[in-house]
Amino acid sequence: MKNKQKKPVRPKALQPKGFRDYQGLDVINRDVMLRSISEIYYHYGFDLLETSAVETVEALGKFLPDIDRPNEGVFSWQDEEEKWLALRYDLTAPLARFYSQYKNNLTLPYRRFAMGPVWRNEKPGPGRFKQFYQCDADSVGVPSVTADAEICMMLSDIIENLGVPVGGYIVKINNRKILDGILETIGLHDSHMAEGLVKKKGIVLRAIDKLDRLGLEGVEQLLGRGREDESGDFSVGAELSESQVELVSAFLGSDGSSQQQTLTNLKELVKDSKTGVTGVDELEQICCFCDVSGFSIKKIKVDPTVVRGLGYYTGPVFEAELTSTFFDEKGIKRQVGSVAGGGRYDDLIRRFTGQSVPATGVSIGVDRLLVALRDFSSSENFDVGPVLVTVMDKTLISDYQAMTHELRRNNIRAEMFLGNPKDIGRQLKYADQRNSPIAIIMGSDEVSRGIVQLKDLKLGSVLSKEIKTNQEWKERPAQIEEKRETMVKAVKKILGRGSE
Amino acid sequence: MKNKQKKPVRPKALQPKGFRDYQGLDVINRDVMLRSISEIYYHYGFDLLETSAVETVEALGKFLPDIDRPNEGVFSWQDEEEKWLALRYDLTAPLARFYSQYKNNLTLPYRRFAMGPVWRNEKPGPGRFKQFYQCDADSVGVPSVTADAEICMMLSDIIENLGVPVGGYIVKINNRKILDGILETIGLHDSHMAEGLVKKKGIVLRAIDKLDRLGLEGVEQLLGRGREDESGDFSVGAELSESQVELVSAFLGSDGSSQQQTLTNLKELVKDSKTGVTGVDELEQICCFCDVSGFSIKKIKVDPTVVRGLGYYTGPVFEAELTSTFFDEKGIKRQVGSVAGGGRYDDLIRRFTGQSVPATGVSIGVDRLLVALRDFSSSENFDVGPVLVTVMDKTLISDYQAMTHELRRNNIRAEMFLGNPKDIGRQLKYADQRNSPIAIIMGSDEVSRGIVQLKDLKLGSVLSKEIKTNQEWKERPAQIEEKRETMVKAVKKILGRGSE
Repeated sequence: MKNKQKKPVRPKALQPKGFRDYQGLDVINRDVMLRSISEIYYHYGFDLLETSAVETVEALGKFLPDIDRPNEGVFSWQDEEEKWLALRYDLTAPLARFYSQYKNNLTLPYRRFAMGPVWRNEKPGPGRFKQFYQCDADSVGVPSVTADAEICMMLSDIIENLGVPVGGYIVKINNRKILDGILETIGLHDSHMAEGLVKKKGIVLRAIDKLDRLGLEGVEQLLGRGREDESGDFSVGAELSESQVELVSAFLGSDGSSQQQTLTNLKELVKDSKTGVTGVDELEQICCFCDVSGFSIKKIKVDPTVVRGLGYYTGPVFEAELTSTFFDEKGIKRQVGSVAGGGRYDDLIRRFTGQSVPATGVSIGVDRLLVALRDFSSSENFDVGPVLVTVMDKTLISDYQAMTHELRRNNIRAEMFLGNPKDIGRQLKYADQRNSPIAIIMGSDEVSRGIVQLKDLKLGSVLSKEIKTNQEWKERPAQIEEKRETMVKAVKKILGRGSE
Repeated sequence: MKNKQKKPVRPKALQPKGFRDYQGLDVINRDVMLRSISEIYYHYGFDLLETSAVETVEALGKFLPDIDRPNEGVFSWQDEEEKWLALRYDLTAPLARFYSQYKNNLTLPYRRFAMGPVWRNEKPGPGRFKQFYQCDADSVGVPSVTADAEICMMLSDIIENLGVPVGGYIVKINNRKILDGILETIGLHDSHMAEGLVKKKGIVLRAIDKLDRLGLEGVEQLLGRGREDESGDFSVGAELSESQVELVSAFLGSDGSSQQQTLTNLKELVKDSKTGVTGVDELEQICCFCDVSGFSIKKIKVDPTVVRGLGYYTGPVFEAELTSTFFDEKGIKRQVGSVAGGGRYDDLIRRFTGQSVPATGVSIGVDRLLVALRDFSSSENFDVGPVLVTVMDKTLISDYQAMTHELRRNNIRAEMFLGNPKDIGRQLKYADQRNSPIAIIMGSDEVSRGIVQLKDLKLGSVLSKEIKTNQEWKERPAQIEEKRETMVKAVKKILGRGSE
């Protein structure tokens, strides 16, 4: 048996399930988008921080929405010393770790932005992958809601900077303290809540967060005894009494005819709770700051139904929604919905330091935004292939090389055809697939005459559609002869860079 | 026992061992560098590809230099279906997977560049971390050495584009086929090598790759019986005979008085091996292509001692070295050495497809290059803090907000002080730490007079060093009064953007 040769097993050429590759416009557009977003963050005074993709499980904590399934949702492993490491699932947990680690050396308030991939070990769905990009900004050490107001205004500026007009989006704001006030009023809130109550509150939060998807009736079922979905699966409810459900429902339906009316409605609902009243006051302040800075309710408005699923928010919460629709990969029209969200989390850093540190921030779901803004502008000029120097005669390769470099030195994207130069048709097909604007052709005949042929591929494809007569072909030739010495000049002219 | 309250255990605020955070100029400079490198890649006709950080262990394969320690060197874990996943350790293995997966839809030759972090689970050292950046370009499907020549020229352009002058770097080229020819000559090479021979060849390769560090004598020990280092650790040798070691040594010492002389020396050494002769021919061609394209031996030159540690190279190999020195974090002067390397790997993709696919590429060690070029230019204008609108009077916060937004709308990086506004000194200290160019001060007195105070912090810090007399202070005041309406104009003037 020892001599029996093992047949080599070929590895499968597949990315792991739920991951994908990005090329072409997909990756260019994301780059342009990240740049556009970070420009605004920077403009607002935030500085860039990049932490590693890997953190200790201990430092990350468990703050994913499905808080009751420990250790799920992240990619984790043990190192040699049996310490658990994991890929970050967002950019906030690493910020809390970073701030706590370096707080004595940081300028306070600490304002940073961050961007990069995060990883979730969750079931992938259409358009949902296990690795995706986030782009965050946070202010740490700011107790005042001016910081929250600023983030809402920044979100508005960011979305408009991406080309979405006023009316095409809305930044919705709310305050967790108002919901806390409601829960206090119905007897569900206490600063030292028992475990059962915490769990109940979690169910309430997540139920409200599903309002969009389930409608008010569905949410009310989840607030009460529970809900059976279409597949027959049953979700346990928060077991609130009828009158309790009613009050929460009234909160969700407190949107008034005007922003002031909404605030008045909210005030009335929480009048017996100090926390609730503070919540409405803070919300009013944020609205005022936005107003004086020129952000009307067409851009930023109060919405009592926004609560955000994450457990750690303690004050203002916000969500940016695109009101437009888009066509998904299957051609189905969809509502875009939420593309960014955030809020105040005054207790997250306490995990590390033992002291409450006021902090607020926002996270933009870049990949989701990209799908929604698929025809996202400004990337067109990136999609230009290289000028192709074709290989007509193998003995002239040194000349082709020199030509290619002459073009490059003159700031023209160029390459020599590196594949098998069997026939020119194949090379022109390559030029076409690469979106090349020009193919340069030079055989021994051209060499002896001291010329090159320039094939204007863009014009050529237009002409073949438009031009009917031979005379027209002659007047607008898609292929011209040019002296070798003036090749660069002629190429620039075709590229519309004649004045260089 | 059940009622005993658990004392909450605080997580440690520490990144995992061997990882680090990047902020300020560190991360800005890397961004500028990646942009500069990818500009050249793009200019040469390469397109951007981004694969995920996570791959199956199966697809990644085991190609780290320490090939004989399986499963070490990477971060890996099992998913729910017990499949092994891992973080990529370079950008070449994912390219091989990607190409094999999509080869039928790709335009060939496939030319892509990629950049991003890679992860190695190796012992970290000074300046060596477990996550670091690479920036690669590869041509897949190109049998001709024109592609290899192109990469060498591109490397030269990249390094010069980063500000390193001719003479400050050198791109060294060699060809594995020459070494294969030598090994063939001494009886160590065969296309169907037995396992023992493969291992021996591996030891030889890695020994040669350590020439810089160990010197010729050390390498010769490793080629022969083995070598004991200073600590007493013994590395097993390749057990070559004395005459075999001699021939390999001659190869390493074949550098001649001129490039042509070196090539002649190499030809003589491998004259009995077909593979070896082909190797020298290819090297000669590359030199010729570089020469006609205007890249002299001051930029790109043959160096027989370059072999590269990786096992999968099959032809030309290259390495870019900075000849300059730098001061490390401890202030110790160091030789920079190799900052980029690559070569031809015609068999890597065969793992997946069963067919040999010619490919060649380069990988730039971005973080190493960054340390070497610490005073890397062009990032200065990023290091400007925001204009700070101070908070003198809490009742005026709405006005401060509006002022801040007026500045932002006029394309001025600005923020309102968001910390505790207890005293103005603290706010100015913040402005100083943030590198703010201007602080704006407006109390109730200024409001009643319709003015603001602009504190020119840059000028202020210059003046406090330079100016001796009171008269001079008056002539170049670091603090000026300005009408509220013309605040933006005055700020622009101080920022040197008066003409906007």
